[in-house]
Amino acid sequence: MSGRTARRRVVRVTVPAAGAGGDVTASARADLLAAEEPLGIRVDGTALTLTMRTPGDDTELAAGFLVGEAIAAVRDDIVGMKVCDGTTCGHLDHAEGEIGNIVDITLAPGIAVTAGARRNFMTTSACGVCGKTSIDDICVLPQTPLAADATVFTPTVLTSLPDRLREAQRVFSSTGGLHAAGLFTADGELLVIREDVGRHNAVDKIAGWALLNDKLPLSGCALLVSGRASFELVQKAVLAGIPLLAAVSAPSSLAAELAEEAGLTLVGFLRGQSMNVYTHAHRVGL
Amino acid sequence: MSGRTARRRVVRVTVPAAGAGGDVTASARADLLAAEEPLGIRVDGTALTLTMRTPGDDTELAAGFLVGEAIAAVRDDIVGMKVCDGTTCGHLDHAEGEIGNIVDITLAPGIAVTAGARRNFMTTSACGVCGKTSIDDICVLPQTPLAADATVFTPTVLTSLPDRLREAQRVFSSTGGLHAAGLFTADGELLVIREDVGRHNAVDKIAGWALLNDKLPLSGCALLVSGRASFELVQKAVLAGIPLLAAVSAPSSLAAELAEEAGLTLVGFLRGQSMNVYTHAHRVGL
Repeated sequence: MSGRTARRRVVRVTVPAAGAGGDVTASARADLLAAEEPLGIRVDGTALTLTMRTPGDDTELAAGFLVGEAIAAVRDDIVGMKVCDGTTCGHLDHAEGEIGNIVDITLAPGIAVTAGARRNFMTTSACGVCGKTSIDDICVLPQTPLAADATVFTPTVLTSLPDRLREAQRVFSSTGGLHAAGLFTADGELLVIREDVGRHNAVDKIAGWALLNDKLPLSGCALLVSGRASFELVQKAVLAGIPLLAAVSAPSSLAAELAEEAGLTLVGFLRGQSMNVYTHAHRVGL
Repeated sequence: MSGRTARRRVVRVTVPAAGAGGDVTASARADLLAAEEPLGIRVDGTALTLTMRTPGDDTELAAGFLVGEAIAAVRDDIVGMKVCDGTTCGHLDHAEGEIGNIVDITLAPGIAVTAGARRNFMTTSACGVCGKTSIDDICVLPQTPLAADATVFTPTVLTSLPDRLREAQRVFSSTGGLHAAGLFTADGELLVIREDVGRHNAVDKIAGWALLNDKLPLSGCALLVSGRASFELVQKAVLAGIPLLAAVSAPSSLAAELAEEAGLTLVGFLRGQSMNVYTHAHRVGL
């Protein structure tokens, strides 16, 4: 694992505005880029997935990925996690690029990575969003519906969240290249913020933080993501037990459909003094 | 397959600015969202991948995915493509959600989806970006390096591209939720534009358009993407033979490293009158 940013030489080119005259200028400078490296996630010795992520909070990312896949739901579902360091991890086949870039997870007895292991969860046949075959696998809803979460978030608190998230983004200002996800209480208190080149990774890091700190389900919380809200982010929020997902930009149609079905309040275009509430508006205190 | 947008009811909530007084207002209205649906890609009868995409140009998306995976490089590598319509596709096991959401591809004899089938391409051991094990698989470079492409793009043409892309985005203005990718000549002529909820899908659709129209490699072209430039997008551009990739936002560190290695000119923060050139600046006429 290396740092969250990497320094690179860049040529800054500026073109005069039309009609303004003058020459094209070019100057070399150093620039900070958001780091992106592959992270392999191994479960019980078998490679599960490879994700391109910004290094940092890697065990949280791996744990959160398992939450989003409905493999782990409570702290005790994971009995061991370690980042391969090339010496103590028990693998003798490491190449240079793998050191620090593989997380090894040991699941508790009875927990496994199979469709059948998705215990405690219903699959899509009851979800109504997806089709009914292999496409099933992309849609998993928790057995305990979010409908039971009666938390109310005031519009004033909600419109304050994007500024709070931005203030907390230490890296964003220096690279302009990182997505952020922030978890807030109904009072607008920021509980945790995570960043990544991939928005879904930032959300996985938050779900993993919650799993590893025994805080799942995240009842009463709001999750704010920079950018857009996809189907995938809605599913991750639902599986983490979060009742409200807000995005600075637009949701997709399937994000809204799944949110409707799962009992999640979905807020989009949360900017300045306004927002769009797509589903379950009863949690937005009006 | 349904449309590219979906209509939904939304509650628009506005909060008075601090100190401005007045009440929170809420009004229901209809809103258009970018459609997102799963697309399954089957190759020679076997499920290869499932991607969440905006419906439209699905055969291009599937073909372009194969280009980005270094499975197909020329038109003749694919001998058959069809979208499963539930009747003529030869599958008897369709569920409702699959109709229109699966593309079936038949590869030419000798072309197959295995690591060994990545003929004509070197893998990462020569690439220097990734590690040297299974992480190899994420990094594939074409045997014909981009270095041979001596096309020059003037700064004035480059700064004009974002406006041209935006003008061509028919859907974006109505949903605010779609990424776009546009392929341009060195004169700034727009050859093709594709949109999707996923930026990588928009680029796959362009690579697939090129493959199916026998236009690969895309020598002499510039590809502009809305948003950021990831490692994955650089790899897709390189495998399509595109010498210049420009992004409206930041690239990641690994995107810049792979671009350097592969001979791709990588431009970021292409906005207004300026841009950052991260690699191979010789193609930007200064």
